[in-house]
Amino acid sequence: MELLEKRILADGKIGEGDVLKVDSFLNHQMDIGLLCEVGKEFRRLFDDVQIDKILTIEASGIGVAAITAQYFNVPMVFAKKSKSSNISADVYTSEVYSYTHKRTYDIVVSKEFLHPGEKVLIIDDFLAKGSALRALMKVVSDAGAETVGAGIVIEKTYQGAGIELRNEGIRVESLARIAKLSVAEGIEFYR
Amino acid sequence: MELLEKRILADGKIGEGDVLKVDSFLNHQMDIGLLCEVGKEFRRLFDDVQIDKILTIEASGIGVAAITAQYFNVPMVFAKKSKSSNISADVYTSEVYSYTHKRTYDIVVSKEFLHPGEKVLIIDDFLAKGSALRALMKVVSDAGAETVGAGIVIEKTYQGAGIELRNEGIRVESLARIAKLSVAEGIEFYR
Repeated sequence: MELLEKRILADGKIGEGDVLKVDSFLNHQMDIGLLCEVGKEFRRLFDDVQIDKILTIEASGIGVAAITAQYFNVPMVFAKKSKSSNISADVYTSEVYSYTHKRTYDIVVSKEFLHPGEKVLIIDDFLAKGSALRALMKVVSDAGAETVGAGIVIEKTYQGAGIELRNEGIRVESLARIAKLSVAEGIEFYR
Repeated sequence: MELLEKRILADGKIGEGDVLKVDSFLNHQMDIGLLCEVGKEFRRLFDDVQIDKILTIEASGIGVAAITAQYFNVPMVFAKKSKSSNISADVYTSEVYSYTHKRTYDIVVSKEFLHPGEKVLIIDDFLAKGSALRALMKVVSDAGAETVGAGIVIEKTYQGAGIELRNEGIRVESLARIAKLSVAEGIEFYR
């Protein structure tokens, strides 16, 4: 998606440890106009399949998923990162390892909101090593529902998960794919 | 907002400790059609003032704030609940006491995304004792920006913060105001 790639080049910052920071438009401040274009593009890409529900994970996935869901006219569900006293005990759960925070955490989705046979589109802001996406897929599968695909705003192809998942037959549509990233050489997209 | 009140009566559940659960349409599964009506209503209510930015707090505020921001054509910023390695060290910070989780946590907003003189609309899903809203207002004030108002989806008037804030001259617009809530007697709206 050209608009997104241009924005990443213009406003993305490469931090220590070759981390891509897109805080100014995607995951701290959100450019809602851009997110609307992102949502429409996901709709275009997944227009050939039935989607009953959009699933994401808190926190920064929520904005993209909410905006995207309006173009599909379906409910959005976000997996929560820890069990809150406000959530039913009756949940699907899975484990995510966060490479950013170097720790494992649980995600939970109430059994009320995922049903057998539902066609689920997973939406997230980033795909790196795929731990969050695989945890969401497990939750969908535990519910007897089906992951019809994953819509990712920014994929870091050099971290491998996107390619692995596609090899396993999972449909992954990423709007920007980053092949290389370094303070010294900047950002190179995967073509 | 009649649509919202009807939905709360139809699908809200009253849990142990007289907690209102709106997990099925507001803060776990999100009914995006409803959220669009919520966003339009905030736009209508705040149509008389200049709004430069929408501010909320992760996690469940993000969906409402993102959807709302598209009707104002302004960026949305969400305060993060703890310092992530992906965030600049240069942040405004404030403390929130969570009555639900019975603990204090910090919120942070990067100084890059709040500027002196900006007119900020704070959006959140709930207003109960006002700890999160006051923390967001402090962050806005620390930035030299101005809170022009707060748009709240559900206010629990019996917890007092909304009335206190209005007495202090803060403009608080709540789309549903709950006066009483109990397992025994159900939900009563404030009129």
